[in-house]
Amino acid sequence: MSLSGDNRRSLTTVVLAAGKGTRMRSALPKVLHRLAGRSMLGHVLAAAQEAGADHIAVVVEPGRADVAAEIAREAPGARIFGQAERLGPAPAVLCAREALGAGGDVVVAFGGTPLITGATLARLRAPLRDGAMVAVLAFESADPSGYGRVLTEGGRVLAIREEKDASAAERQVRLCNAGLMALSGAHALDLLTRIGNDNAAGEYYLPDAVALAVADGYAVAMVPVAEEEAHGVNDRVQLSLAEAVIQGRLRRAALLGGATLVAPDTVFLSYDTVLGQDVLVEPHVVFDTGVTVGDGCVVHAFAHLKDVRLEEAVSIGPFVRLRGGAVLEAGAAIGNFVEMKNARLGPGAKAAHLTYLGDAEVGAKANIGAGTITCNYDGVNKHRTTIGAGAFIGSNSALVAPVTVGAGAYVASGSVITDDVPEGALAIARGRQAVRTGWAETKRAALLAAKAEQKKD
Amino acid sequence: MSLSGDNRRSLTTVVLAAGKGTRMRSALPKVLHRLAGRSMLGHVLAAAQEAGADHIAVVVEPGRADVAAEIAREAPGARIFGQAERLGPAPAVLCAREALGAGGDVVVAFGGTPLITGATLARLRAPLRDGAMVAVLAFESADPSGYGRVLTEGGRVLAIREEKDASAAERQVRLCNAGLMALSGAHALDLLTRIGNDNAAGEYYLPDAVALAVADGYAVAMVPVAEEEAHGVNDRVQLSLAEAVIQGRLRRAALLGGATLVAPDTVFLSYDTVLGQDVLVEPHVVFDTGVTVGDGCVVHAFAHLKDVRLEEAVSIGPFVRLRGGAVLEAGAAIGNFVEMKNARLGPGAKAAHLTYLGDAEVGAKANIGAGTITCNYDGVNKHRTTIGAGAFIGSNSALVAPVTVGAGAYVASGSVITDDVPEGALAIARGRQAVRTGWAETKRAALLAAKAEQKKD
Amino acid sequence: MSLSGDNRRSLTTVVLAAGKGTRMRSALPKVLHRLAGRSMLGHVLAAAQEAGADHIAVVVEPGRADVAAEIAREAPGARIFGQAERLGPAPAVLCAREALGAGGDVVVAFGGTPLITGATLARLRAPLRDGAMVAVLAFESADPSGYGRVLTEGGRVLAIREEKDASAAERQVRLCNAGLMALSGAHALDLLTRIGNDNAAGEYYLPDAVALAVADGYAVAMVPVAEEEAHGVNDRVQLSLAEAVIQGRLRRAALLGGATLVAPDTVFLSYDTVLGQDVLVEPHVVFDTGVTVGDGCVVHAFAHLKDVRLEEAVSIGPFVRLRGGAVLEAGAAIGNFVEMKNARLGPGAKAAHLTYLGDAEVGAKANIGAGTITCNYDGVNKHRTTIGAGAFIGSNSALVAPVTVGAGAYVASGSVITDDVPEGALAIARGRQAVRTGWAETKRAALLAAKAEQKKD
Repeated sequence: MSLSGDNRRSLTTVVLAAGKGTRMRSALPKVLHRLAGRSMLGHVLAAAQEAGADHIAVVVEPGRADVAAEIAREAPGARIFGQAERLGPAPAVLCAREALGAGGDVVVAFGGTPLITGATLARLRAPLRDGAMVAVLAFESADPSGYGRVLTEGGRVLAIREEKDASAAERQVRLCNAGLMALSGAHALDLLTRIGNDNAAGEYYLPDAVALAVADGYAVAMVPVAEEEAHGVNDRVQLSLAEAVIQGRLRRAALLGGATLVAPDTVFLSYDTVLGQDVLVEPHVVFDTGVTVGDGCVVHAFAHLKDVRLEEAVSIGPFVRLRGGAVLEAGAAIGNFVEMKNARLGPGAKAAHLTYLGDAEVGAKANIGAGTITCNYDGVNKHRTTIGAGAFIGSNSALVAPVTVGAGAYVASGSVITDDVPEGALAIARGRQAVRTGWAETKRAALLAAKAEQKKD
Repeated sequence: MSLSGDNRRSLTTVVLAAGKGTRMRSALPKVLHRLAGRSMLGHVLAAAQEAGADHIAVVVEPGRADVAAEIAREAPGARIFGQAERLGPAPAVLCAREALGAGGDVVVAFGGTPLITGATLARLRAPLRDGAMVAVLAFESADPSGYGRVLTEGGRVLAIREEKDASAAERQVRLCNAGLMALSGAHALDLLTRIGNDNAAGEYYLPDAVALAVADGYAVAMVPVAEEEAHGVNDRVQLSLAEAVIQGRLRRAALLGGATLVAPDTVFLSYDTVLGQDVLVEPHVVFDTGVTVGDGCVVHAFAHLKDVRLEEAVSIGPFVRLRGGAVLEAGAAIGNFVEMKNARLGPGAKAAHLTYLGDAEVGAKANIGAGTITCNYDGVNKHRTTIGAGAFIGSNSALVAPVTVGAGAYVASGSVITDDVPEGALAIARGRQAVRTGWAETKRAALLAAKAEQKKD
Repeated sequence: MSLSGDNRRSLTTVVLAAGKGTRMRSALPKVLHRLAGRSMLGHVLAAAQEAGADHIAVVVEPGRADVAAEIAREAPGARIFGQAERLGPAPAVLCAREALGAGGDVVVAFGGTPLITGATLARLRAPLRDGAMVAVLAFESADPSGYGRVLTEGGRVLAIREEKDASAAERQVRLCNAGLMALSGAHALDLLTRIGNDNAAGEYYLPDAVALAVADGYAVAMVPVAEEEAHGVNDRVQLSLAEAVIQGRLRRAALLGGATLVAPDTVFLSYDTVLGQDVLVEPHVVFDTGVTVGDGCVVHAFAHLKDVRLEEAVSIGPFVRLRGGAVLEAGAAIGNFVEMKNARLGPGAKAAHLTYLGDAEVGAKANIGAGTITCNYDGVNKHRTTIGAGAFIGSNSALVAPVTVGAGAYVASGSVITDDVPEGALAIARGRQAVRTGWAETKRAALLAAKAEQKKD
């Protein structure tokens, strides 16, 4: 957590995450839907931590173990408060009343506004240091309908008016309330408890804190933000728009960092994807979470990666699926229709075609032939396959784990290897070829006759 | 077909579908080109039926059996009329003269304007009930060039002017004719036969019915429509734009219905795709026609599906190809580089890697190892493979159909199974492993020597 | 190279290609980064040749063998000049001083402005024939910031002002300099050597030639260009935008030429891709360089092609990878998870599933079963597999090259074929099936017991 200035005041961030999200039409709570591999709530908690929150309070629907677990994972020290009734955001914040008493600054963020950045949360809080009682986040919108409007006079903020309560003139205002708010902790509880529900919807609106503060003679600051950051997610169309924004940010950072994405719009990154310099990514690639790609790697089209580490100058694909602890060391290469799971490919090792490497260790410069399968599962347990450096596995072989092929050994094509192969040995385990001349014509005639017979029936 | 009001008048929809479509540069008639898995003509016929057409008449190029077959499939009761000469849309409608005599309402639609919806066709017809003789469909365009302009005075429609015949002032008009028209059946034939060809192109323009009706003192109504719906397809750039619009509609409906499409722009749906609630679709998926996905399914990236049914909580991919009658029952899972065709996977059954299941029946909780192939084709006929519940098929096995593996049976890795395997038995059909120590070094030396020799030659 | 008019004047095109491209963050020189399969420099050299350049001079960073090789490949007759110091574009052009002395016309283009077309270069040069001394390429921009402004009076070009040197009023000008310039060869050297560096950046600006020519009383012409063509590439975000523009051009040409791209934005073409008429391309396809697709072919989704020729009515995919000299003759078909490399499929031959065909020749109407692998590599050398017309290769077979399967022969499923198979014969090379009844229950019990034992430890 970062300090922000000498005059250190504590920062408490309250994240409202209790919304039902009915329009999501989902059994999953809205805030657990994912963007770039991380839940919406996770994104907001990360932003809060990046902005230097000393305390985080999350207000949730009571009894949701999945939400609680997500909070524990993304912000271990955060306190969780249940919100039993739904009366609007102001009472929701008050559910975290115990977390607000400490003084210092309070920032209110929303689990359903996941594009907010840590930098913006820090900017939102800044005016409190300069004496503001309340700071609101606002943006100009070409189409403000649906948003609360920020009413100002001579540059001073007077109030925030929900659209339902706005006059025709107020609806012309294009300055919109992003929803997030900073309050001076010393007065926050007082303001929040005074908010009433005398409005069209009968809700207790958090933004009414603005008019109350103004009436008390306190300064209210307005902090500008890009409309994009204020994007709220209430249905899956909005979720997909949020995903597009986050992907745009991640792609831009990857490009400026020195990776080529031939077609950025077809490459999907996760919040934690790491791409080295001079990495080339062809179109149509999915980086799920936990992927690190070293300098100079080439990721051909149609790749799907999760929990994978590629060291330098590795080439993969097209058509690869790497997952669950796959590691490719420098200069290793895998080709099309290859899967790796919990497997390591040593430096310069190759597996070019139609191969499954599961629970396997492959030594440097080994060559895994087309159609090789590590048989790692016996129906109950998983077992390991070890292939030594420089070994050559002939095509269409099955390696029945646990099994070891020694360094420099050969496995003949089409073999089923059940016993260890010594270093430098040849192992062969396949049927011997027999030929019946003239067989094909007779057979075809018989098959066609049978087919004709079937049709008669 | 839906009724629309007590005062039931019959509705005849004439679909003009005889255009050569020269700019498509195709051997296929223009109206048979497909959008979201359905021909353009099919989309228009579906809209006509949705709008409650009692009679459908389709005007086609004479002698096109493929077009006739498509009409029979998409609108079984429709009558087909051949259009021998090409003199413009008005004579084209008159080709269906026999279908127009019945009175009632007439709506004229176009096979090359496939984005029109049933709702719009119903709106277009509505003014006839209120006494209009003709109703035209119109939209405001920022760039009206190329469109016929709707000329009005004091809100009343006076005429439609083709761009070629328009004065400079008329070309400034931004109100455009979408082409579709509704006519009162009682006068339709009279108006249509009076249309002349005294214009720049020497064509008989259907929209001239407007000026004729106005001159006769009849009311002409104008029905607004989104420009998008009026999009005409004359070349493959326009075809691809129409595809994008239809995909946008389908994706939006899927999202609002409760499916997550992580990257909607990379997911291609068909007009008949059904996605359940809380379905998660990763990027890069193609749903060809005939696909139903149950609640809670996960479709990983890089999937291609056609004529498939996934029941609840099924997981597929990444990299799967399902087709021709594949059925996955609840909780079944298939992984990467797996193909299914005319095959059923029982509840909880799994086939995780590099597998082909064709003409197969797999019992509940069976486990199909990596690289398993059902050998269903003998060069003439297809045969079935049956795998019992709880069976375990070792990796890289070939099952030569017709063959049955009993419930709970094991097939050893690398086996070629040609005979039935009893319940609970182990079947093993592979070569025995032999090892030649020290072989590899000698072999490599020989291979390298041979290579050196070759280079010398 | 094309002639342009009777009054034939020679044309020398100078391409500046020495830029470091620091913002690319790449070990590769900026101009060698690729767009649609061709280097940026290659695109510019192609445009220069298309515009009829008699001589091409390329100014490069000294000692870059990779750049020199690219020039030799893309414009064999071009002369290469090293640029030791970096003082701006004017001195850069002077590095090619020896190439400018010949008189005729001079056009200056940039390796980092790769979207320029041959047609535009020809238009840029045209005014010189009508007496202009200099011609500049200009576009109107909604957001001109960063560009040099073209200052005019009464339609006459007066000067070009870099943004750093522009007054507030000049910054309001929206007419921007695209950078490219044509100069009359007779005076080019004189103008260029007189350019000074008395400006904010202390650089020798090529556009200063305009003011010098105007001061001398010469005519300066302005040639309009679309902003898109002037797009400069200095980082990988700009590189990806350039890629998008080129892909848009290639897709549009393919569509108008009579190919259907269901989803053009997901199909990636190379500069040399050739698609025949009535080719259907599903979403998510990558055409790398060297691909020709004949009339009536179907390319299903998820295909990756490089150096491939498809003859008429071939069907491929979904999920195919074709490369390195793959040829599919008329009516051949390959299905999912199939790779071909240096292999030919005869007319009507099929390989439908999970197959690798490398260094292979397959005869007409042969059927290659699922899971077939040509074992073409022995660890040192590659060998060929030959399959005769009408042969049938049973599923999951391995063909150990060099090997020949005769016409009409059968290979039994699961065989490892090491010796030639005569015409019409059956070859079978697999283990015989053995069954141990009751084995499975005992085995499962043992496995589970072992697992329980492990957990105890």
